[in-house]
Amino acid sequence: MFTLYFAPHTCSLASHIALEDAAATYVMKRVDFAKTEQQKPDYLAINPKGRVPALVTPRGILTETPAMLVFIAQSFPKAQLAPLDDPFAFAELQAFNSYLCSTVHVAHAHRMRGHRWVDDPAAIIAMQKKVPESVGACFDLIERQLLRGPWVMGDTYSIADPYLFTLAQWLEADGVNPARIPRVIEHRQRMAERSIVKSAIAEELAA
Amino acid sequence: MFTLYFAPHTCSLASHIALEDAAATYVMKRVDFAKTEQQKPDYLAINPKGRVPALVTPRGILTETPAMLVFIAQSFPKAQLAPLDDPFAFAELQAFNSYLCSTVHVAHAHRMRGHRWVDDPAAIIAMQKKVPESVGACFDLIERQLLRGPWVMGDTYSIADPYLFTLAQWLEADGVNPARIPRVIEHRQRMAERSIVKSAIAEELAA
Repeated sequence: MFTLYFAPHTCSLASHIALEDAAATYVMKRVDFAKTEQQKPDYLAINPKGRVPALVTPRGILTETPAMLVFIAQSFPKAQLAPLDDPFAFAELQAFNSYLCSTVHVAHAHRMRGHRWVDDPAAIIAMQKKVPESVGACFDLIERQLLRGPWVMGDTYSIADPYLFTLAQWLEADGVNPARIPRVIEHRQRMAERSIVKSAIAEELAA
Repeated sequence: MFTLYFAPHTCSLASHIALEDAAATYVMKRVDFAKTEQQKPDYLAINPKGRVPALVTPRGILTETPAMLVFIAQSFPKAQLAPLDDPFAFAELQAFNSYLCSTVHVAHAHRMRGHRWVDDPAAIIAMQKKVPESVGACFDLIERQLLRGPWVMGDTYSIADPYLFTLAQWLEADGVNPARIPRVIEHRQRMAERSIVKSAIAEELAA
């Protein structure tokens, strides 16, 4: 039994979908950002970083989406969510997910979380102005070079797919014109049509 | 045979040390940032992201430090650089490395690479002002909660150690007072005394 601490509209959706893909037994616990619960002692005891997601497992607590996704894939090998027996293919998958967390998500975060890196209000606004360009450049690279199609790693669905799908939720709000990245949008649409993805999103919004 | 594309004083040092730890056969190729070689067609053909590191392998090219480090550990299992047979312990290791790439390195990058996220010169200066605080907060968390000691994951050396060591090179330049993080500094010192670390750094600076 796992417990996934999540907030709607955040990257915790990737792990939520992966848990569904794995047919894992888990419960969801919402962290209410409107009440800044992520910064309160009860939650900091779970994740001292004060962010979502966090995954409570019988062995302990895990954080960081790329690590959690691989843990889910390794814990449920029958779901075949990662090429666990091929170090090079596994590294390619990990490189994709690492790019999402360290570059794509970070570019996006300069729209809503600029206070992490600057105090001056004018600088926060200046950061927000560049988000369409910086996030757009990331998705251009994904469109042209990284997304193999139909799934991220090619013919086989993997933990990279719910992660890309999750970050692609934010494109329009980030000011990126979807018309410039048709393959990413087609991938997002294919993911959105999956019944477990629909129910995962509905569950998060209803929580 | 591998080829590691690197630049001195960058995070490519982590993979360099891991290749040494693994007793891998490899050659080093310097990418000259002073000549902006990382943005020229020859290098973009290797890594379209225009960054280091990149690892050329017989199967293809890998990027992103966390992915490369695990690939090195999996390719040379006798070196025992990661708990490859324990998904939870492996996930804890991956979570640490993911935090380094997506939060610690990113906080640091706001000192030298602010142009990635903002155009306004005043905003770039405002970003730089916050680096001691944002990088310092990351290393406080590492000091208090994440670094188990003597190595990152406890008694056993792993690919998290060269990665932490690499990012800890930049502490003083980022304006973080080493006195506030004695355990991190002690780890850095222990790593710096290893002969393969000394020779790896010397090789990079001489290239």
